[in-house]
Amino acid sequence: MGRVTVRRRVLRVRDGAVSHRADTLVAEEPMEIRVDGRPLTVTMRTPGDDFDLAVGFLVSEGVVHAPADVSGVRYCLGATADGSNTYNVVDVVLDPAVPAPSASLERNFYTTSSCGLCGKASLDAVRTSSAWSVAEDPLRVGPELLATLPDRLRDAQRVFDSTGGLHAAGLFSAEGELLCLREDVGRHNAVDKVLGHALREGLLPLRGTALMVSGRASFELVQKAVMAGIPLLAAVSAPSSLAAELAEDSGLTLVGFLRGSSMNVYAGTDRISPLGLRP
Amino acid sequence: MGRVTVRRRVLRVRDGAVSHRADTLVAEEPMEIRVDGRPLTVTMRTPGDDFDLAVGFLVSEGVVHAPADVSGVRYCLGATADGSNTYNVVDVVLDPAVPAPSASLERNFYTTSSCGLCGKASLDAVRTSSAWSVAEDPLRVGPELLATLPDRLRDAQRVFDSTGGLHAAGLFSAEGELLCLREDVGRHNAVDKVLGHALREGLLPLRGTALMVSGRASFELVQKAVMAGIPLLAAVSAPSSLAAELAEDSGLTLVGFLRGSSMNVYAGTDRISPLGLRP
Repeated sequence: MGRVTVRRRVLRVRDGAVSHRADTLVAEEPMEIRVDGRPLTVTMRTPGDDFDLAVGFLVSEGVVHAPADVSGVRYCLGATADGSNTYNVVDVVLDPAVPAPSASLERNFYTTSSCGLCGKASLDAVRTSSAWSVAEDPLRVGPELLATLPDRLRDAQRVFDSTGGLHAAGLFSAEGELLCLREDVGRHNAVDKVLGHALREGLLPLRGTALMVSGRASFELVQKAVMAGIPLLAAVSAPSSLAAELAEDSGLTLVGFLRGSSMNVYAGTDRISPLGLRP
Repeated sequence: MGRVTVRRRVLRVRDGAVSHRADTLVAEEPMEIRVDGRPLTVTMRTPGDDFDLAVGFLVSEGVVHAPADVSGVRYCLGATADGSNTYNVVDVVLDPAVPAPSASLERNFYTTSSCGLCGKASLDAVRTSSAWSVAEDPLRVGPELLATLPDRLRDAQRVFDSTGGLHAAGLFSAEGELLCLREDVGRHNAVDKVLGHALREGLLPLRGTALMVSGRASFELVQKAVMAGIPLLAAVSAPSSLAAELAEDSGLTLVGFLRGSSMNVYAGTDRISPLGLRP
């Protein structure tokens, strides 16, 4: 699609000096995700890896778990009044054996908000809906290796430096090898794009891997990691209270403020080796 | 409520040295917004200013415009199975003369995603649904005054320094006076809290004001500013392409990368005085 960034003329002020120049903005466009032709959700996203995003959203929602669950993914033609293809409507065709997502948009609505009525209820819901447990994952990672992830993630972000507006999500092996990098104006979308790639490549559950995100760690990101079987989530910035609670409840290792050789471990400290050996 | 932050024991790694300490996390809990007893949406938010958040969400959605539109706001008792008050369910009672939000959750679902099927459609939708135009607002602001807003916003953020995880939205007068500050784990919620405060105080439309946000400027934030009649939105970080397009289309002044005496103006440059006088 090639619409990851958009050039735009801006007025630039630097210490009182004014100039006109072209600036690069991160592209943000709405994308509608349909399942078997039925609209499911609309997300504001950065165009690119749209099929990964659509499928990854369904991974996060617990609808699909294996490549065979998805019969096909396509852009919808004629989704607009004038019949043109906007490349902003993606239809995921499920295998007939896969139960469709709840027909109730109300349920989807709530699911998208990543919670039920209260934190406790939603934590329970995640446990029951995830196809895999991350609690027993034998992954062990040293703090020295974790400390290398932010730079590896940023080095791989070609777009970030030109716009300053993209969130990144990187999937790493236990040895620190970058397996998949996805970017988006929305942090959740970046993670969903990673999940969709993983499903389509037959990599789910993502045992023994670590997910690194460029921003904060919210409840939703922990939930997505658990839904994909990822045992470790690391973030450059702060986690929320509910993110830490869900991580502990799920047996996921949650690392925050990962900067240089510094980090805080909010849950699952056993996986941080050799820290796990010296409690 | 007093649940803006949560203390939690964490494992801290600094240059190979490991320690256990208590850390302060920003609280994140789901809140259900009901209108006249009917569930409308669930948002993950930082507890506090919940009534402002609920009412401000309805301002953003174009449901309410004046204090008289809201007959009352209350926490729902007995919203959980055990009948306890979680303070996570807020009911807004509308004046009988105010049309209820569409009964179709599908519509709400889409509206919450802040767009229709494509960017063009949603830009049109915003124009028709906003009760006020910001295009003719006579606000003029010098770059020197704008340059003071980030520090004023940060100084007013008591919570930020202890958690590093809260977004802030500050409403400023044309003279740079802070009229209202709200914080939240979600950037949209911080803005909705400002809008709800403004409605309840009878300040809508917010002519002649500037809204400053701590993070990026997304399409949704521009939309919320327009819905409240705010003619200028300034952000510490980058805007998205759609945010700039909507700002230009709506006649809103959009400032990004506002740091020190530097800034980029993406739309509505006429309001940046004296820049507007020297095109």
